[in-house]
Amino acid sequence: MLAARPRPAGLAERRQRLDALGAQYRLPADVRVVPIEANGVPAEWTTTPEAHDARVILFLHGGGYISGSLTSHRHMIAEAGRQARARTLALAYRLAPEHPFPAALEDVLSGYALLMAQGVEPERIAIAGESAGGGLAVAALISMRDKGIPLPACAWLSSPWVDLELAGASMTAKAPVDPLIQRPYLAELARMYLDGTDARSPLVSPMHADLKGLPPMLIQVGSAETLLDDAVRLADVAGTADVRVTLEIWPEMIHAWHLFHPQLAAGRRALAAVGAFIRSMMG
Amino acid sequence: MLAARPRPAGLAERRQRLDALGAQYRLPADVRVVPIEANGVPAEWTTTPEAHDARVILFLHGGGYISGSLTSHRHMIAEAGRQARARTLALAYRLAPEHPFPAALEDVLSGYALLMAQGVEPERIAIAGESAGGGLAVAALISMRDKGIPLPACAWLSSPWVDLELAGASMTAKAPVDPLIQRPYLAELARMYLDGTDARSPLVSPMHADLKGLPPMLIQVGSAETLLDDAVRLADVAGTADVRVTLEIWPEMIHAWHLFHPQLAAGRRALAAVGAFIRSMMG
Repeated sequence: MLAARPRPAGLAERRQRLDALGAQYRLPADVRVVPIEANGVPAEWTTTPEAHDARVILFLHGGGYISGSLTSHRHMIAEAGRQARARTLALAYRLAPEHPFPAALEDVLSGYALLMAQGVEPERIAIAGESAGGGLAVAALISMRDKGIPLPACAWLSSPWVDLELAGASMTAKAPVDPLIQRPYLAELARMYLDGTDARSPLVSPMHADLKGLPPMLIQVGSAETLLDDAVRLADVAGTADVRVTLEIWPEMIHAWHLFHPQLAAGRRALAAVGAFIRSMMG
Repeated sequence: MLAARPRPAGLAERRQRLDALGAQYRLPADVRVVPIEANGVPAEWTTTPEAHDARVILFLHGGGYISGSLTSHRHMIAEAGRQARARTLALAYRLAPEHPFPAALEDVLSGYALLMAQGVEPERIAIAGESAGGGLAVAALISMRDKGIPLPACAWLSSPWVDLELAGASMTAKAPVDPLIQRPYLAELARMYLDGTDARSPLVSPMHADLKGLPPMLIQVGSAETLLDDAVRLADVAGTADVRVTLEIWPEMIHAWHLFHPQLAAGRRALAAVGAFIRSMMG
């Protein structure tokens, strides 16, 4: 069904389409949404009755660095927050091509700084990201570590994109079964985000970074993804650097399948696993 | 401490040493041990008060195909059974060099056949193996699938050895931090077990097998292991074949650290994770 859709004509249509995907799902009545500005970055809190005030998920949406928004992922992150019994702060970081690297990364650090300023304890924060947002989350952790900023308790990375060179074997091997993400599309996104930066630079392709000292990571990926090997290689690189890693490969799931959780049991199960992981890491 | 021990002189000393490692830990008083013969294979049941009769873990010890026994791993598998709320059946499969491939594999199939004959439901069986026993467990699953034997519900693989070619990058990269397992030792074990069989044959190095149709796997490995990449590559190959995979990389843990659980909190936590996984897979 997804594969059969006509390819979007341009940037505006891509953004509109991803927003529409999220907007089609009605937010449960018990989710409270509060828009804010996080040190200049548009953002919003979501809270469910299950949330403990002290716990926060800082969320970075997917969309290939050129699309995605608060609208596209609101229903998904609200449910993740419910499962984790945490408030969520989603960031509308700046997008390429208008704002290439490192604009998005700067915005994530600004968002995290707001949490620090508000007195949220780092050990009660999970940083989370999907797809491009997953790569961005790892890049943010590296930046925080290098700047001496206290690190969050854990990271949840959903179908993370961590290799802008597109060198994973699954980029070809899984192309026939991935209805959403194909190499030419990713190459175009990478060009827009990189804007001349080396694709192997650790802050754009964090699988090339030294990940020593990063907090425990839950990495989730579907087996029907061209990005499968990004997740596997990230697990390898992080684990090799003595980071505590849990990698879950979900059979036949497509890229960022959690987005479809209202109609997809495996999406709900994956979010339940996220909740259990984050709760266990926050003590 | 482990690295500082003198190298064992020969086969008998290696076997004795691994048995002594297990025997040093007193079995809790509430563990019941019942020796049996499983279709000709020496074996034993362990049961804790927590065990449901209907649930069974079929366990294949480690020891590089040339050592390991019921004695060496009794305390560890008893605790895994407690955590999983299952009985455990451990097999003393035949060892190389006296009995090279495929003797051990035949014994595992004999042990599984006993469970089938006793009316244990496949969906209430977990197959489990450590190190060489982990590779053997995957080989057994492949054999069962190919013979049309009903598959168990899930597999737990602890520091599995699935590449007798020893081609993983961690074989070199982790050599300085692994106190137990080094390439020359593994190469010697592989020679004894293979006895002329191709090291890339899928039933001795199951990372070269088609793993399609295998049940969900929990793979646990330490980051201080030369065998780290065996676990990562198995996760990759299995996940790519649409097997449900959870890979856990435990920072700074050494090969088969669960064996030390009476004195090692990370061993107890790893066994708790095993229990949760098996329980979730048996419904």
